[in-house]
Amino acid sequence: MVEPARVVVLGGGFGGVAVAQELEKLLPKLDRPVDVTLVSQSNYLLFVPMLPSAAAASIGLTHILSPLREILRRTRIRVETVESVDLDARTVTTTHPSSHQEQVLHWDYLVIALGSVVNLARLPGVAQHGLPIKTIGDALQIRNRTVEMLEAAENSPNAEQRKRMLTFVVAGGGYSGVEIAAEINDFVREAERECYPVIQPEDVRVILLHSGKRILPEISESLARFAHRKLADRGVEVRLGARLASATADHVTLESGERIDAHTLIVAIGSSPNPVVQQLGLELERGRIRVDETLRLAGQAPVWALGDCAAVPLPKSGSMAPPTAQFALRQGKTVARNIVAAIEGRPPSRFTFTGLGEMVSLGRGTAVAELFGKLKVAGPLAWIMWRTFYLMRLPGLERKIRVWLDWNLDRLFRRDLVQLSVQRTERVTNAHYEPGQAIIQQGELADAFYVIVRGTVEVVREEDGQETALARLGAGDSFGEIGLLQHRRRTATVRAVEPVDVIALGRSDFDLLAGTWKNLGQSLDEVVRARSGEG
Amino acid sequence: MVEPARVVVLGGGFGGVAVAQELEKLLPKLDRPVDVTLVSQSNYLLFVPMLPSAAAASIGLTHILSPLREILRRTRIRVETVESVDLDARTVTTTHPSSHQEQVLHWDYLVIALGSVVNLARLPGVAQHGLPIKTIGDALQIRNRTVEMLEAAENSPNAEQRKRMLTFVVAGGGYSGVEIAAEINDFVREAERECYPVIQPEDVRVILLHSGKRILPEISESLARFAHRKLADRGVEVRLGARLASATADHVTLESGERIDAHTLIVAIGSSPNPVVQQLGLELERGRIRVDETLRLAGQAPVWALGDCAAVPLPKSGSMAPPTAQFALRQGKTVARNIVAAIEGRPPSRFTFTGLGEMVSLGRGTAVAELFGKLKVAGPLAWIMWRTFYLMRLPGLERKIRVWLDWNLDRLFRRDLVQLSVQRTERVTNAHYEPGQAIIQQGELADAFYVIVRGTVEVVREEDGQETALARLGAGDSFGEIGLLQHRRRTATVRAVEPVDVIALGRSDFDLLAGTWKNLGQSLDEVVRARSGEG
Repeated sequence: MVEPARVVVLGGGFGGVAVAQELEKLLPKLDRPVDVTLVSQSNYLLFVPMLPSAAAASIGLTHILSPLREILRRTRIRVETVESVDLDARTVTTTHPSSHQEQVLHWDYLVIALGSVVNLARLPGVAQHGLPIKTIGDALQIRNRTVEMLEAAENSPNAEQRKRMLTFVVAGGGYSGVEIAAEINDFVREAERECYPVIQPEDVRVILLHSGKRILPEISESLARFAHRKLADRGVEVRLGARLASATADHVTLESGERIDAHTLIVAIGSSPNPVVQQLGLELERGRIRVDETLRLAGQAPVWALGDCAAVPLPKSGSMAPPTAQFALRQGKTVARNIVAAIEGRPPSRFTFTGLGEMVSLGRGTAVAELFGKLKVAGPLAWIMWRTFYLMRLPGLERKIRVWLDWNLDRLFRRDLVQLSVQRTERVTNAHYEPGQAIIQQGELADAFYVIVRGTVEVVREEDGQETALARLGAGDSFGEIGLLQHRRRTATVRAVEPVDVIALGRSDFDLLAGTWKNLGQSLDEVVRARSGEG
Repeated sequence: MVEPARVVVLGGGFGGVAVAQELEKLLPKLDRPVDVTLVSQSNYLLFVPMLPSAAAASIGLTHILSPLREILRRTRIRVETVESVDLDARTVTTTHPSSHQEQVLHWDYLVIALGSVVNLARLPGVAQHGLPIKTIGDALQIRNRTVEMLEAAENSPNAEQRKRMLTFVVAGGGYSGVEIAAEINDFVREAERECYPVIQPEDVRVILLHSGKRILPEISESLARFAHRKLADRGVEVRLGARLASATADHVTLESGERIDAHTLIVAIGSSPNPVVQQLGLELERGRIRVDETLRLAGQAPVWALGDCAAVPLPKSGSMAPPTAQFALRQGKTVARNIVAAIEGRPPSRFTFTGLGEMVSLGRGTAVAELFGKLKVAGPLAWIMWRTFYLMRLPGLERKIRVWLDWNLDRLFRRDLVQLSVQRTERVTNAHYEPGQAIIQQGELADAFYVIVRGTVEVVREEDGQETALARLGAGDSFGEIGLLQHRRRTATVRAVEPVDVIALGRSDFDLLAGTWKNLGQSLDEVVRARSGEG
């Protein structure tokens, strides 16, 4: 029997899913068996074009998430985090997002489609106080913040405070900035009118900041002007040449020095390549993986990259393909075909797609569209085109029905005003262990720091099958700091002797506190000096 | 002009909402103007009977939440937390859940309907590792955990680990335990069959633990036996006389000493009265507020209590009314009528309701019902009754349509397999302040502890309009600990001198770490000794 060829796809966004979908179509025609594995951090595909609508409660949050197992029936799905890629050994190491257990996957063909992340570190306070619009969690945060501000403003006795609560600043006048500004504007004004009697229309401000001379640089000037006018008609203040400088919990500062009092800042800027790709040791171009026109990396190993994390040269123009769903989907098909070609020993094909056009929704009943570089449409017709096109694109009949129902129920009823607080309130987690149970295990990745609330633990080191007891610790003692401070892996095992209660602080929070707070740093230094080995 | 009478209702569950709804009906008929304010921690009413269905993804999460502003059109809604009640001054102090700003509300008539909470502190490890089923956040946690376990088990190379991941233990054989066990069983078995090819039916175990001799002590024995048989037929292992003793992240221990390997424990036990009512200084009976048969408290002030937080005597039997929605709704009507009677100087009426009956859903297509103490129904007819009754009870036409659609789309498609991760991963929050901005303000409630990452702050005390500078602090220094350790309020103001970045740890996390961890406690003692005043 022939060993199956192993294809591993990293990333569950449009690019990665398109590769797997196309492979599912092509592979049954091959003689050789092929196993396809897709590694994704979430178990769904996020339908990004509808994210602004979900953030503004005009579509149900889960309706724009398509479970990967439903759209990919013959692909092995792994909901794991990519830690590293070894191009020589042809492996990928992943960890499980909650247990942090490691897995090593072997591949014969590799696809990297890890997408982009939001990076706002450049602007003081923006990473802390700005709400990005990139994930479903972001959409929920924006929705909850908006409703929270409406609720708080309705009961605020102070007119100035009320206005600050009802000022929503959106930074970035590209697609997603324009769409989220339009949606939030509709949402807040509608809610104010129907459910919040104290709040007056003039209390509400939605401000769109754009650093350039016109919004929507992606489309032609006449359409962008139309969009600008439409937004202004509906009460969005569009500020051109306005560049965000910094943010705090209650105001935003522009580069000009102007200060805008606002509790809510939505940031539709700062998209940057996934930092994981920088750790892979590959050749990068402005943070993105450089590929040739067949989307393959230079070098021996059969590796392809696509989507937002790849620098894909466009034919003729010499520029790079834009980081949009449209391009990722097409690139996915090319990559899948080229993998099949590589398996069959045929020459690869080139990526020649140059884009079909752009559509931007401007809120209820209006949009702009530009197709094939020529056809320009604005107003209700463009809006019907937007809805029809994206509804068709949404994967799965059930999601289509649900979104269609959302749109139609929305006309009869108002948008969902529920503030869905689903976060656990405690930041520090508690855990309980029974006697004999290991709390940390030698050799595992260090991911948390512990303080004992009750009970006794023993610290032991295993070497050549022999166990050496290093210490016993009790209530008030801490452990695990050495693994976090000095190593990535645990150098000893810590095991409960009696029933034990601990509190745990995750790696990133521990690093933040220990790296920042002098007193804590000093105490930890003492602990490290006093002990040796465990952790 | 007559000053309006002020009615304040504390709590946005079935009881509080029923009072406000009935008042909205009755008040327009009065001569005197009356203002009704309802204080609730969330801006929606949770429709508790459908919580198990939402947890098992057969109903959309938000579909069982009815925005309070939509069901109460003439009541003033305040989304705030009740801090204290002053019966002499006739005030209530509330705080805003995120800004922690205080408000004092004056009342002429007060209603306390603060419900119950889940308290599992008695059983080691259960508070830490058990998933309660009480709030919408709980339902989301259960749904996410279930899908996470399916995903992880599908890719686990270890058969034993896979079985542990697919064992779901439910503690408590009352209504909610039975309903959640039935729903999770349907959900996992259906998902396994359709979307997880590696997982086999025999890998899945759903275990219902009940300490008594039969499940569902609320209904008659013959129906409970029917329910037991139905659950067993569908693969739920019902364990009678089994009492939960402790839990860890990967196993559950019973009082008998038996150990069950399982990553998921759902707890439908441990309901106890809201601890806020204990701080009110009222006469309590097993943690609940004692009221007379008109639902009024003894004493001068016109105060009523109802629902899960009240000890309401039942006519004849002398026992207390059970903590169910059915009783809370009827009590709400009585309270509203008695408030109107008090305003008009008429005598109050008594609460004489003794219950209509009980219905318990046993998962797809079957249920049991017992009505008027006589009529017993089991099977599909009871299930149709369950659905019809609760759908009619669900507030709002839009929600009715949505749940009805969920039920019907559910037949055509499978349940939602999305693992909706909406938690922000960082436990410690970051904040940025611009020069001159106050980070903490003298006199405010202390709610966080801060460490300076970058920049300088000044600590000042205001007295008689005079400001005294106490200290300047820079990167690595901490502040705010004194307010948390020694006072409830800030004794000084801390203000940014330059642009400042801080990390903040909330009050409960700080208390937990500082109260537990010896090293930290010592460093903090030093800080407190060295400084005086600010914080």
